[in-house]
Amino acid sequence: MTFGERLFAAVRRVGNPVLVGIDPRPEELPPGFLDRFPGTTEGTAEALRQFGSDVLDVVSPMVSVVKFQSAFYEAYGPAGVAALHAGVQQAREKGLIAIVDAKRNDIGSTAEAYARAYLGKVPVGESYEPAWSADALTVNPYLGSDGIIPFVRVAARENRGVFVLVRTSNASAGDFQDLVADGLPIYRHVAARLREWAQSCSTGDPYSLVGAVVGATYPGQLAELRGELPGIPFLVPGYGSQGGTARDVAPAFDEHGLGAIINNSRGITGAHARSPYRERFDKNWQGAVEQAVRDMIDDLAANTPAGRLLSTGKP
Amino acid sequence: MTFGERLFAAVRRVGNPVLVGIDPRPEELPPGFLDRFPGTTEGTAEALRQFGSDVLDVVSPMVSVVKFQSAFYEAYGPAGVAALHAGVQQAREKGLIAIVDAKRNDIGSTAEAYARAYLGKVPVGESYEPAWSADALTVNPYLGSDGIIPFVRVAARENRGVFVLVRTSNASAGDFQDLVADGLPIYRHVAARLREWAQSCSTGDPYSLVGAVVGATYPGQLAELRGELPGIPFLVPGYGSQGGTARDVAPAFDEHGLGAIINNSRGITGAHARSPYRERFDKNWQGAVEQAVRDMIDDLAANTPAGRLLSTGKP
Repeated sequence: MTFGERLFAAVRRVGNPVLVGIDPRPEELPPGFLDRFPGTTEGTAEALRQFGSDVLDVVSPMVSVVKFQSAFYEAYGPAGVAALHAGVQQAREKGLIAIVDAKRNDIGSTAEAYARAYLGKVPVGESYEPAWSADALTVNPYLGSDGIIPFVRVAARENRGVFVLVRTSNASAGDFQDLVADGLPIYRHVAARLREWAQSCSTGDPYSLVGAVVGATYPGQLAELRGELPGIPFLVPGYGSQGGTARDVAPAFDEHGLGAIINNSRGITGAHARSPYRERFDKNWQGAVEQAVRDMIDDLAANTPAGRLLSTGKP
Repeated sequence: MTFGERLFAAVRRVGNPVLVGIDPRPEELPPGFLDRFPGTTEGTAEALRQFGSDVLDVVSPMVSVVKFQSAFYEAYGPAGVAALHAGVQQAREKGLIAIVDAKRNDIGSTAEAYARAYLGKVPVGESYEPAWSADALTVNPYLGSDGIIPFVRVAARENRGVFVLVRTSNASAGDFQDLVADGLPIYRHVAARLREWAQSCSTGDPYSLVGAVVGATYPGQLAELRGELPGIPFLVPGYGSQGGTARDVAPAFDEHGLGAIINNSRGITGAHARSPYRERFDKNWQGAVEQAVRDMIDDLAANTPAGRLLSTGKP
């Protein structure tokens, strides 16, 4: 079973395509949270670890996939990276699929080193051991095929996944991604290569181990890419605090209500600071997180093809 | 004094533009090196740290800049990242300029987090503290301006540098970088934006804090970009084991023999395994490293405009 099959089996099991993003910014932790830890680099890293752990406790009964944003952990040096590492292991122990959002990229043998680091095994003494054990990693395609194929190969060997940035959700994504060459924007050229990378490791399963990051901020592009990339899992950022609605992300799904996972980071982990959760939950920030996940599940069920999962897929 | 000024003052001081790349692959360490450490993840990470430290001891009297490839450290999880962190600090203590080659990239506030992590300060308790203290970081431009400007702003504030991937040195770099839009290849569009980013933080100094990564494998492109990007420091990979010669990298330099630093990683740190160093130095791998650096300095002095540094810049 490829990563794509495993991913959507898990989505079907919980009945929703919500991807909870854990992007812990110290300044956005719940009020008082940081005060429980020493005001040191190590103490702050420990606070990030604890916050991630608490979020996993709340969301793991409801969703199947989480994504850790590496930047916020790297911000605290080796101690922060240790907190990220602990989060990934804990998510997997809870039966969640853990994506590391690190947007790694490099040439040939260095890409191979990243791939083995996050998705595979590295030489330790006389044998090989996993270092990160992430289920999937986000990668950046600017360096072309020989910067991506090592990730695909290692992922295929280890039954892991790769999400290639195709069209991102930020305002200036179009600076280079939308430039038109040979009648097609660059992100469509990336999509065409992505099809080849997916074919190179195809097992005949409907969903590939090679996925695509496609932002929710341009629904037309999402629909176009969905049509062009059947069987490619879409990781869709931009829902919620970045302005995307359920209707915006609807085109990411296929006719089975599958094919996409919809990320929400701040909208969930920062719900305690926003209406209506702030008024309703006050200091119970976990209650706010839980309610925000429920509201997102309901929103996607009502307004996207993912609603079909509820009638067909629930255990 | 901008990062670019600081960089080339250091290059002038040592009289050469050699950038020693530290890319420690366990399987390429000198024979017997790993045997001195426990055959565990932590032991292997400690071996990488010690190897980096030994390389710095050999090269620091001869060169002014080193570059650490993050992938090979991340391969050993948090322990590996701690070894990278130690290497950066040690390089700086030795008076070297330390570049972290991590090719980071993300959107807006996440790019800001990476920038503050590697180049600036992060919130710790009541104040802000540096986490990595790198002198410069490599970054990937696929996400456009709002994925790069946070790095430029933080670098400007903290007197650090940023090297943006423009044209990389790998075989499939052209998959997307060479696609032609509006009459220009994508990498030229990136170069045009890079000029804007550099102008946005210009202090009037000749050399910018915003640099470019331009591979040595395509000398024509190097010449073209050198003409288009005056005052932009070039980080040039591809010399040595990737096949680039001194003549190939010559177009990267300006009329002062400055404007570029030339990376060599395996060609220096792996010299012990290659002729003529293997025969000459046998088990004295540090001797091989030292001779390989000397040979590269001489090669660049004889065959590139960097030779001018020897008559004008030596202490």
